[in-house]
Amino acid sequence: MVLSETAASIKNMEIRGAGRIARAAVDALADYARNLDASDPDTFKQEMQKAADLLTGTRPTAVSLPNAVRSVMRALDSFDSVEAARDAVLLRAAEFVEHSEHAIERIAEIGARHISDGDVLLTHCNSEAALGCILEAHRQGKEIEVYATEVRPRGQGLITIRTLNDAGIRTNYIVDSAVRYFINDVDLVFVGADAIAVNGAVVNKIGTAQIAHAANEARTNVIVAAETYKFAPRTILGELIEIEERDPAEVLPREVAEKLPFVRVRNPAFDVTPAEYVDLIVTEQGAIPPGLAFTVIRDYLGWRIEELR
Amino acid sequence: MVLSETAASIKNMEIRGAGRIARAAVDALADYARNLDASDPDTFKQEMQKAADLLTGTRPTAVSLPNAVRSVMRALDSFDSVEAARDAVLLRAAEFVEHSEHAIERIAEIGARHISDGDVLLTHCNSEAALGCILEAHRQGKEIEVYATEVRPRGQGLITIRTLNDAGIRTNYIVDSAVRYFINDVDLVFVGADAIAVNGAVVNKIGTAQIAHAANEARTNVIVAAETYKFAPRTILGELIEIEERDPAEVLPREVAEKLPFVRVRNPAFDVTPAEYVDLIVTEQGAIPPGLAFTVIRDYLGWRIEELR
Amino acid sequence: MVLSETAASIKNMEIRGAGRIARAAVDALADYARNLDASDPDTFKQEMQKAADLLTGTRPTAVSLPNAVRSVMRALDSFDSVEAARDAVLLRAAEFVEHSEHAIERIAEIGARHISDGDVLLTHCNSEAALGCILEAHRQGKEIEVYATEVRPRGQGLITIRTLNDAGIRTNYIVDSAVRYFINDVDLVFVGADAIAVNGAVVNKIGTAQIAHAANEARTNVIVAAETYKFAPRTILGELIEIEERDPAEVLPREVAEKLPFVRVRNPAFDVTPAEYVDLIVTEQGAIPPGLAFTVIRDYLGWRIEELR
Amino acid sequence: MVLSETAASIKNMEIRGAGRIARAAVDALADYARNLDASDPDTFKQEMQKAADLLTGTRPTAVSLPNAVRSVMRALDSFDSVEAARDAVLLRAAEFVEHSEHAIERIAEIGARHISDGDVLLTHCNSEAALGCILEAHRQGKEIEVYATEVRPRGQGLITIRTLNDAGIRTNYIVDSAVRYFINDVDLVFVGADAIAVNGAVVNKIGTAQIAHAANEARTNVIVAAETYKFAPRTILGELIEIEERDPAEVLPREVAEKLPFVRVRNPAFDVTPAEYVDLIVTEQGAIPPGLAFTVIRDYLGWRIEELR
Amino acid sequence: MVLSETAASIKNMEIRGAGRIARAAVDALADYARNLDASDPDTFKQEMQKAADLLTGTRPTAVSLPNAVRSVMRALDSFDSVEAARDAVLLRAAEFVEHSEHAIERIAEIGARHISDGDVLLTHCNSEAALGCILEAHRQGKEIEVYATEVRPRGQGLITIRTLNDAGIRTNYIVDSAVRYFINDVDLVFVGADAIAVNGAVVNKIGTAQIAHAANEARTNVIVAAETYKFAPRTILGELIEIEERDPAEVLPREVAEKLPFVRVRNPAFDVTPAEYVDLIVTEQGAIPPGLAFTVIRDYLGWRIEELR
Amino acid sequence: MVLSETAASIKNMEIRGAGRIARAAVDALADYARNLDASDPDTFKQEMQKAADLLTGTRPTAVSLPNAVRSVMRALDSFDSVEAARDAVLLRAAEFVEHSEHAIERIAEIGARHISDGDVLLTHCNSEAALGCILEAHRQGKEIEVYATEVRPRGQGLITIRTLNDAGIRTNYIVDSAVRYFINDVDLVFVGADAIAVNGAVVNKIGTAQIAHAANEARTNVIVAAETYKFAPRTILGELIEIEERDPAEVLPREVAEKLPFVRVRNPAFDVTPAEYVDLIVTEQGAIPPGLAFTVIRDYLGWRIEELR
Repeated sequence: MVLSETAASIKNMEIRGAGRIARAAVDALADYARNLDASDPDTFKQEMQKAADLLTGTRPTAVSLPNAVRSVMRALDSFDSVEAARDAVLLRAAEFVEHSEHAIERIAEIGARHISDGDVLLTHCNSEAALGCILEAHRQGKEIEVYATEVRPRGQGLITIRTLNDAGIRTNYIVDSAVRYFINDVDLVFVGADAIAVNGAVVNKIGTAQIAHAANEARTNVIVAAETYKFAPRTILGELIEIEERDPAEVLPREVAEKLPFVRVRNPAFDVTPAEYVDLIVTEQGAIPPGLAFTVIRDYLGWRIEELR
Repeated sequence: MVLSETAASIKNMEIRGAGRIARAAVDALADYARNLDASDPDTFKQEMQKAADLLTGTRPTAVSLPNAVRSVMRALDSFDSVEAARDAVLLRAAEFVEHSEHAIERIAEIGARHISDGDVLLTHCNSEAALGCILEAHRQGKEIEVYATEVRPRGQGLITIRTLNDAGIRTNYIVDSAVRYFINDVDLVFVGADAIAVNGAVVNKIGTAQIAHAANEARTNVIVAAETYKFAPRTILGELIEIEERDPAEVLPREVAEKLPFVRVRNPAFDVTPAEYVDLIVTEQGAIPPGLAFTVIRDYLGWRIEELR
Repeated sequence: MVLSETAASIKNMEIRGAGRIARAAVDALADYARNLDASDPDTFKQEMQKAADLLTGTRPTAVSLPNAVRSVMRALDSFDSVEAARDAVLLRAAEFVEHSEHAIERIAEIGARHISDGDVLLTHCNSEAALGCILEAHRQGKEIEVYATEVRPRGQGLITIRTLNDAGIRTNYIVDSAVRYFINDVDLVFVGADAIAVNGAVVNKIGTAQIAHAANEARTNVIVAAETYKFAPRTILGELIEIEERDPAEVLPREVAEKLPFVRVRNPAFDVTPAEYVDLIVTEQGAIPPGLAFTVIRDYLGWRIEELR
Repeated sequence: MVLSETAASIKNMEIRGAGRIARAAVDALADYARNLDASDPDTFKQEMQKAADLLTGTRPTAVSLPNAVRSVMRALDSFDSVEAARDAVLLRAAEFVEHSEHAIERIAEIGARHISDGDVLLTHCNSEAALGCILEAHRQGKEIEVYATEVRPRGQGLITIRTLNDAGIRTNYIVDSAVRYFINDVDLVFVGADAIAVNGAVVNKIGTAQIAHAANEARTNVIVAAETYKFAPRTILGELIEIEERDPAEVLPREVAEKLPFVRVRNPAFDVTPAEYVDLIVTEQGAIPPGLAFTVIRDYLGWRIEELR
Repeated sequence: MVLSETAASIKNMEIRGAGRIARAAVDALADYARNLDASDPDTFKQEMQKAADLLTGTRPTAVSLPNAVRSVMRALDSFDSVEAARDAVLLRAAEFVEHSEHAIERIAEIGARHISDGDVLLTHCNSEAALGCILEAHRQGKEIEVYATEVRPRGQGLITIRTLNDAGIRTNYIVDSAVRYFINDVDLVFVGADAIAVNGAVVNKIGTAQIAHAANEARTNVIVAAETYKFAPRTILGELIEIEERDPAEVLPREVAEKLPFVRVRNPAFDVTPAEYVDLIVTEQGAIPPGLAFTVIRDYLGWRIEELR
Repeated sequence: MVLSETAASIKNMEIRGAGRIARAAVDALADYARNLDASDPDTFKQEMQKAADLLTGTRPTAVSLPNAVRSVMRALDSFDSVEAARDAVLLRAAEFVEHSEHAIERIAEIGARHISDGDVLLTHCNSEAALGCILEAHRQGKEIEVYATEVRPRGQGLITIRTLNDAGIRTNYIVDSAVRYFINDVDLVFVGADAIAVNGAVVNKIGTAQIAHAANEARTNVIVAAETYKFAPRTILGELIEIEERDPAEVLPREVAEKLPFVRVRNPAFDVTPAEYVDLIVTEQGAIPPGLAFTVIRDYLGWRIEELR
């Protein structure tokens, strides 16, 4: 896929899930580097930076996107030749992708330990990490059952139930409004995250906060499965994670909306689940309570406040 | 509309809202009576009973339906002629419809007093009584704004926003999952009810309980607008209000579902909001806290326990 | 059993459960009346009053006891002969016992409707009314399972599990401390009541409030099964329901306690569950939310405030 | 005590309390090493390992047990002579015991500072660390009063009240069900811990979670006194702390149980108190909020995730 | 005091407390009638109505004011002579005052039963009914201690502590902000009410809601002492109880405020305590939970919805 | 200002706010050093220590005071001449003041990012750090509105509204009791802190805990703005932060109090807000959740437990 196609696919959410976005962006950068014809290293670097900026601009709330892009771009220090610069980019990109894929595996391994034989789980949206935990538990022979939501307006739940069906896991498919109705039958909620703020608040697909709230009311634990690169460093500086409002047409067809002048469609893609409704965040570095997000940012991601200013 | 058509329209939810269902059933009974050719009063009564049973069987959770039907059928005591019986039915039906329509007006009048100038309201589904309150406040010149949900799977929110738009009320249209995201901007939630149990629990469109729960978390009051005939007498005897599970195809097209053998669609049409999340129930007899449902059943609806057994 | 024996058996809790206490007291009064040799109606009345006072003094918190006694004594208005007075007492006593026994049946019938096939229930202590609901549901063929607590210090749980075992109901027996551990597996809590105050607070066996609190945390409903004569009229006047503290030796053998001079055993027999942790009170007059205790006292028990002063 | 006796005493809970278990296991290993006749260091090591495995197998939830055993076994690296290996084991064992005993003293010193003159405390079970805090406060001349629970089924409360009585501390002895009844008179709850998970959840004697829940409801602070070796490193990897279910005969005599075929005794020895109900954990390294369990495991216990896999 | 003086004293809060306001208004009307010189009964009635309107207009939130005025004015049906009309007014006024004074006594008697020997109470503002309960308990020889707040901006707490001091009751005087600091030492909160809405919400002096909220957090019961004429009938029709905003100069001297153009003083005299934070309302008709306000309005005050429209 | 004047001004709260107290104390020490005539370095050091002790004794709960004083006194190691010692003190003092002033700026910068255009804020007392955030947001052109409390008994709110007025920020001035009344109109609460304990509990001006509690009920976030030197190291050792009780005459004039022998004025200057009601603490080192107070003390302030004993 060429760069602009990847950018478009991220923007219109054909490519979904922070890990897949991160890896797609890195792959696109690698691919772009591979085919980039430049007269000198500086020009190469400048062109790469334009590509990087194009990618990071597509989804402001996808915290893994700038992290992934930055991880690759950091390789572009100072090189004598275009070839050497290209090689550095390709090497770093390959490393990132491998690391990212292992992250998911590692999370699945840790998360699956929280699932007991006979458990009924609930998941929302289509998180690779959250599904990884569920699939891993199933592979270990644990008898499980899943509730999966529809996820309006884009319906990512359909992808989720296909994956679960293909794995042979007994799945119940419900509208987003029905979560509280069924939550007393659920033992454990597993969701992913798009970003995690310094106070442990979890930014994830719209509806996640309502689910976590309903789970809390019923004393049902909520586990968030998230790679450490989902933790948002700049929230330490008070930067708010911007919640993207997407195209109204996802909710209401334009031709209908046009005839309703007093109606405005509000379509936030994400919401914020407060730390108090989350029991654990499972990362590839182990499981932590959400209150330790700061520690992850400082000790694992290695950010220093000075760098962030 | 002939009887079978009305029954079908109630069943497939073309006719929605307890008041409209009640009046449609009564109208259908009246119409049926008008055209019913019977040799003697007993045969007339038997045929009417069959029609009544057909109607009451269409929607088990619509508490107003049997109440309305019973209200008409009670007229069929013992008559000398088919004509006299027919007249009694028609008279009672006309009375019921008029009373029911006034109920909505009266609720609108009382409910609107709870709405202050500048208020932002949220409503779910398409309740005639709840919308009545909002429209009445608007008619009184109060500047209001409304959030209306989409209401999956059948999308009754679209009807709601059309009504609000036609009245010229500024309306925001959101997916069901986005309620908690916006609830801090909302001053008051107005919803209807399909049935109210003796402990004040409110049975209403799936999703209502989640909304009331989110409102409670944000100290936002929840007002239920409901005619007194929504109060379910037999819950005093411990009878549970059955929650109808509707056709899975409303949620997932049959052709998709067929290919997902491990997936089961669960499609409950209603949920139960506990009394603690409801601040007031506005009826045509005044506003009461939900804890007084028993008093409404006993003192207004006039049920005696002996009758209920 | 002669009067003094009944009084003793109530006092030392060989006779337990408010209904059984009430009927035993009434039977004892009837028996006493039957054998009471008196020269004139006034002497008869005075002797009966002494017997009544003896009985009501045995258990201060057993609200059904004075109610039952008063119900019989009210028959002793003014009679010409000792025989007439005796007959009046015996008639009223027989009526009371029959009414009381039907109350339990009626509660069982109403309460059982709240139990669904497959439900897991939890009960505490040995309440005839609560067990009645469970046994009735079982008789109706519903597949149920019960958690029953041990009920320190007197171990009434043992009687409960024997009853359940004899009925062939699958039962789990746990220590009182283990309720919160298992509550997520429980669908419904059923307990009895010793007394119910005007604000809906339920006085019942020590430990009930902790169970209701744990149920509330897990969104598990709590149903109290109680005859209307458990509602305490004088709480309308602010009279507090006194919580009896029983013999320390029930908790710690006297010979052990003697050697521990700094240790004081506290042995309250009951605690108070606030109305907010109770979903319904099932009485023989129907199911009501606890907030309507005042209405029961005024409208069913027929107390007038003037009488209470 | 020979090894097998120690193992038996840990298993049947004659030896109770994580610190005492840890030290007993270490003493038993030292004693075993002292008397172990082996032809060469490798044989010595193998025999020691068998002893270690015997001990760690006795109580799966006692997290201090494997930690203590491992601490000693780590000394057995590679030695030239059996004598050298034996000396290494004995030295390490002595160090561990001394360190463990100082831990309790240090916790007592820190914990006692949270107790003010005139405070009423409540404790559950028989935790050396929690009692240490209370006794230290008393030694400092603070006027205190204690509520101690009975702790069914094994009655460890009796040991607790003997200790408190011998110290001359005014103590109230109550059944486990009575905690909520008295909690409004309590200023502070002090309990120990068997294990602490990475999210700050505290595994302790069955009933602790109910007490902490009741304390939370009444705005009464809960302090957990626990040595750092109670923190369970493998919970970082998602390993659940297994809750031991003990012999049913502890709750119901076998001869009674035999006659109740439908009754099953459930006897979990521990429960899990969520971090939100715990205000502080006092360790020998200072007082921390439960959310920092991860930091204790990583920074004080020095575990690295790589080691844990 | 002449009519205009009474009106002024009510307006500027020299006359405080709903009972005293009600009686003062009634006394003023009686006094006005006594001295009113009118040519005929109609003129008399018209003049009386003007006086009545003057009084009811002084304090919109004082629900007892219009009730009291209406109670007297109802006497003015149709009379032949001015003298007869005057006599009717004077008789009714005398009755009202006597009834009102007995209400306070009766409430004191009932409320005092909720106070136990050794209790620590907290009160806010200067409610005759709430203080009546406290003083009565003291008179009965119960050893009590009181926390009384300052009650900014008008400082009614000073009157309260003078009354308590004169009675010889140990009293602690604190700023309004310090309630949560001391609430764990308080056993029971006693406050009055200016008005009670149909859903049991209590309108009382600003700050009451914060106190009730803090009490709820600490499991401390809140008792509202209020005559039945404080229940606001028109809230059944959805009429909101208007919260009076009083003169900014009560909070900030005019000369200071003038120099702060960007500052606006907000001075609401009352706030609304939701029913869930109130345990009981003690009226002269007995103690009821707040959820039964509707029943008081309908059954004791005798309002019918038809009348209210 | 000479040393004794500064000490007096801190004691009588003319100098308020932990930062200003810290800097005033450091300035006073510097000034004292500048003018101190001593025969030798040891005498100089001893005199300085007396001055330091005088200052630290003025306000026991002002945690920044001993920290600031210690920071300067640490400079007094061992010097050859009085001049060298003096220079060291002056240098360290200048550094401290500069650092402290930058801390406020840095906090303002981070905190302001949490304020969005259109936000309504609430603040209590007169915290330099909290006001800094608000003023910075205003300077950035964000349209904001503020609610400021009166802050009885000393009325620091007046200073706050003057500052806000001078900056041209629209401000509402309310009594402390009115917070819950207006909290639903507030988007964000900003307060300072006098001290922060190891479990994240925030010690601040009396009334803060009530405000945070009301905010929590309404799902309104609470942000504490505090320099890291407000974190109290010795709370790790269980030392409680003592809450100063100030002169009763601040609340009640002595001449009034004298006549009320049964009345005792309680005047705690601070209260303790539990960590669960605080969403973030903004320090000059970034924003952290309150649960990480321990990490701040250990990693930023650099305290080691060994040092603290």
